Amino acid sequence: MQLAQVVGTVVATQKSQRLDGLKMLILRPFGLDGKLGSGYLVALDSVGAGPGEVVLYCTGSSARQTEATKDRPADAVIMAIVDTVEVGGDVKYQKGNKGAST
Amino acid sequence: MQLAQVVGTVVATQKSQRLDGLKMLILRPFGLDGKLGSGYLVALDSVGAGPGEVVLYCTGSSARQTEATKDRPADAVIMAIVDTVEVGGDVKYQKGNKGAST
Amino acid sequence: MQLAQVVGTVVATQKSQRLDGLKMLILRPFGLDGKLGSGYLVALDSVGAGPGEVVLYCTGSSARQTEATKDRPADAVIMAIVDTVEVGGDVKYQKGNKGAST
Amino acid sequence: MQLAQVVGTVVATQKSQRLDGLKMLILRPFGLDGKLGSGYLVALDSVGAGPGEVVLYCTGSSARQTEATKDRPADAVIMAIVDTVEVGGDVKYQKGNKGAST
Amino acid sequence: MQLAQVVGTVVATQKSQRLDGLKMLILRPFGLDGKLGSGYLVALDSVGAGPGEVVLYCTGSSARQTEATKDRPADAVIMAIVDTVEVGGDVKYQKGNKGAST
Repeated sequence: MQLAQVVGTVVATQKSQRLDGLKMLILRPFGLDGKLGSGYLVALDSVGAGPGEVVLYCTGSSARQTEATKDRPADAVIMAIVDTVEVGGDVKYQKGNKGAST
Repeated sequence: MQLAQVVGTVVATQKSQRLDGLKMLILRPFGLDGKLGSGYLVALDSVGAGPGEVVLYCTGSSARQTEATKDRPADAVIMAIVDTVEVGGDVKYQKGNKGAST
Repeated sequence: MQLAQVVGTVVATQKSQRLDGLKMLILRPFGLDGKLGSGYLVALDSVGAGPGEVVLYCTGSSARQTEATKDRPADAVIMAIVDTVEVGGDVKYQKGNKGAST
Repeated sequence: MQLAQVVGTVVATQKSQRLDGLKMLILRPFGLDGKLGSGYLVALDSVGAGPGEVVLYCTGSSARQTEATKDRPADAVIMAIVDTVEVGGDVKYQKGNKGAST
Repeated sequence: MQLAQVVGTVVATQKSQRLDGLKMLILRPFGLDGKLGSGYLVALDSVGAGPGEVVLYCTGSSARQTEATKDRPADAVIMAIVDTVEVGGDVKYQKGNKGAST
């Protein structure tokens, strides 16, 4: 599992019926130094995540293990909105303080 | 899941019967800067995607979760043709405007 | 499977119910030279691992093969706390000696 | 899925019984510029591929979705021998013309 | 699937019960030039592999397709001890000659 920040959305009308009703969000990797890494991915949302929030996502078949994503053709899902990231006793991220715009 | 642009096709007559009737498309990674990244992959098509279109694909066992690709020996499937990619309030891609030749 | 050191934790209240009651730990890669590699990941804990310990984790669907993680939307799990790492006759890590603060 | 060229073989007598009777081929990545990329992998063959041929392979659990590889401990399978690779209107590979020695 | 050389072992007493009785070996990537690549991984052994041997391993859910590793929380398994690696007509590795110390 990885941490990432929600930075955008993907809209598609012509798609597999099994994706109907699911929000597709663009994520960028969240570094432990508080900076966003390069690259991005698209994940389904199972927890109501919004722009600017730091989230936890998982990939592969595990991405189909939420109620929202069962049997879906999707290999990445957001399954938690992060409150706190702590490393070596330091708080690297606290929701509402920095890096998130909720 | 990742965004990519359809750039070509692969044709094979000598193949697993389970691939019969499926189109095999060559995809190149679509960057959020609107440029294509290096590398490529081959994906099955489940939505009627064509050359120049920006698509969403997924990999792994999730690629077998569309009607078209169930039980197929394929680890990548296109399951959406993208209309809009929006990041940080900016439209990075709009079908019919740029990067696609439909 | 990879070796890693537990360096921190992730806390989230808004999450998939299927993650309830599971500790989410931040891991950094453990190199055979005894140094931590770059990058990190978040893994569920199935063995009571704590900060500073060197652990073994696995990813993908295999991460759902412990009692604690069955059917969970998680793609990484810690399934062993490492006692000894031996390479070419040399002990590269011994629990309690170096690199771990148990 | 990726394109690759068959460059060699692996022979092993001491192995899982579930690999009995399957050919293990060494593949190198096929670039769209017609050159072979660095690195290699070993794949099971399900279509009778031979040295010099450009093939399509898939990885992960999808590699077990051919008749030949069901329930096998293998994460890569060749499931097509490629006739033509076309990108942007250009034929990048044509079986029998270049890059293959059949 | 990849080739690797067995270079060491991992010992852990505090672990998932499902790992009981299985040997955990440290592997380093085997290059076609006969040199070991950087990095390493830990794999379960299903064929009695020992130090110095060149082996074939697979990853992901396929790693659970041997008798020894069914339902185990492990994402890598050794399922063959390699006798010969041949590339382009050249023998790159022959068990007992070089690179192995059986």
